Amino acid sequence: MTAAPARLAALAITFDNVTAAAHRLHGIAHRTPVLRSATADARSGARLFFKCENFQRMGAFKFRGAYNALAQFTQEQRRGGVIAFSSGNHAQAIALSARLLAMPSVIVMPHDSPAAKLAATREYQQGQRDSEVVLYDRYTQDREAIGHQLAAERGMTLIPPYDHPHVMAGQGTAAAELIEGVGALDSLVVCVGGGGLIAGCAVAAHALSPGIAVHGVEPEAGNDTQQSLAAGRIVHIDTPHTIADGAQTQHSGTLTFPVIQRLVASIVTVSDAQLVGAMRFFAERLKIVVEPTGCLAAAAVLDGVLPLRGQRVGVIVSGGNVDMARYAALLAGA
Amino acid sequence: MTAAPARLAALAITFDNVTAAAHRLHGIAHRTPVLRSATADARSGARLFFKCENFQRMGAFKFRGAYNALAQFTQEQRRGGVIAFSSGNHAQAIALSARLLAMPSVIVMPHDSPAAKLAATREYQQGQRDSEVVLYDRYTQDREAIGHQLAAERGMTLIPPYDHPHVMAGQGTAAAELIEGVGALDSLVVCVGGGGLIAGCAVAAHALSPGIAVHGVEPEAGNDTQQSLAAGRIVHIDTPHTIADGAQTQHSGTLTFPVIQRLVASIVTVSDAQLVGAMRFFAERLKIVVEPTGCLAAAAVLDGVLPLRGQRVGVIVSGGNVDMARYAALLAGA
Repeated sequence: MTAAPARLAALAITFDNVTAAAHRLHGIAHRTPVLRSATADARSGARLFFKCENFQRMGAFKFRGAYNALAQFTQEQRRGGVIAFSSGNHAQAIALSARLLAMPSVIVMPHDSPAAKLAATREYQQGQRDSEVVLYDRYTQDREAIGHQLAAERGMTLIPPYDHPHVMAGQGTAAAELIEGVGALDSLVVCVGGGGLIAGCAVAAHALSPGIAVHGVEPEAGNDTQQSLAAGRIVHIDTPHTIADGAQTQHSGTLTFPVIQRLVASIVTVSDAQLVGAMRFFAERLKIVVEPTGCLAAAAVLDGVLPLRGQRVGVIVSGGNVDMARYAALLAGA
Repeated sequence: MTAAPARLAALAITFDNVTAAAHRLHGIAHRTPVLRSATADARSGARLFFKCENFQRMGAFKFRGAYNALAQFTQEQRRGGVIAFSSGNHAQAIALSARLLAMPSVIVMPHDSPAAKLAATREYQQGQRDSEVVLYDRYTQDREAIGHQLAAERGMTLIPPYDHPHVMAGQGTAAAELIEGVGALDSLVVCVGGGGLIAGCAVAAHALSPGIAVHGVEPEAGNDTQQSLAAGRIVHIDTPHTIADGAQTQHSGTLTFPVIQRLVASIVTVSDAQLVGAMRFFAERLKIVVEPTGCLAAAAVLDGVLPLRGQRVGVIVSGGNVDMARYAALLAGA
């Protein structure tokens, strides 16, 4: 899984981009804690280091990429502001980053988004000039078309959730911090949606811990990246039915996929039941709230889906934003 | 709330005892994180520092006092081992501390204790010589009598959950760490059961942050300490009905009460509904799992029960051990 520098140069980002992102985020993003658990170690047979991005600002790693992208806007782009379409953590990450950088933000969200997510996004936009949530009907309207149209009309810059070099480099700072904090690792396990997180983390991990094996974890129902690696090209799937709402992507990005092809050792999958098991484990043993998508990597490690016995393993816990009623129902086994 | 040294000398512990406890616990107890929340600050009008003992070993501050007590056993006491009666966190704290110090432990628990608590206690005792859980019928048998009888028969030392100077001094290290970490505070808010935690913390807080006001929080249904302060003597109440199972004590201790009288500014109460509100706040905003008793101090602060506007306030989050089914039901509002 190593490659000659000449070939690496073709990828969308390098480790220098991750380092530059870390400087931009210094003192602004939280340096999230790394938790350990003797019980988890015993269960997996490995030494596990959980990098807890559920404690990141706005509750997920997405803040890293969003802020890194917005911080590189030109003066003119800042005046126009940012637009994003997302019903999830990327929306809040963009809204919060825009607030911190004093620029307008427009977030295009489905009209039936959970009230809590709408409220959180609007809270970040409060008092910010020209900022709003634009609702669309997900059954009759195309969010990308709406986003591009608004961007053109209002002179705003669209920032996609994963397929952007600045977003990818920002996400990579999670792995960089982890390895700087705990030292070299044998493996790093990361959830996979569109691939922004794992691409950034893979670049950082290979630079800081040569020889590391980076593994991705997808929901069983939505293994598009696993299929893409097997096919050698980006495979598109229907929107998968899974509780891991952050990994309901239909395909990898054109920038993220080449990085995954080059630097990721394997992609494995876990079931929704395994996600719930990991979610309970986090609550009961580590006393932390993790959203379903954030449980992907841990579920694969705790349930022995990956052969990691005897290794030092980093596990990215990607976020903790979950509706309380839904969280309670999942914990209760409903 | 200050007192001349001559009078302080009459209390069961001094700050030197807390300092000595901190040395014993160094490298053994976790130095638990202090979390901050902009939302909590806005809601309370204060700057809040949450000392998160739910991340302590075995999931609660109780480890501090138990280990500090057992670490001071003589060689003969270590041979005989320790006995405790508890259905809660003290049981696990004693069992884990005994394991670490390689001594036998006998824990007297009600026969209808939650399976998870029995299992956790037995897990700590696994492979330890002469260690066991002794079950009793809480409706027909007296646990204190059983405890004292077993202690005499087996040559074991009984460690009570709060009314013991070594236990009190150990618990005080939580406040000491908090103030050493974040600097002087105007107020410190602590939950109150038998008073071991608040007594130890009050001694540490007054030593490290002169002029600090220490406030205790009890469940509305079980305000024995509030009543005792008003009466000027230890008032006994019936076992209160509250979800804060760690604060279902019927009276303060003979050692803890004089410290509370001397060093605690006020005791306030919160309802079970307020505890659930704080529990949800912790899950939703801070992404941490806190047991009902651990929400007492935070509930009083978040709901404005104490006048703390503009102050720097320490809030002790005492533990995170809660049965998952019960936790889910509370989050869901059942």
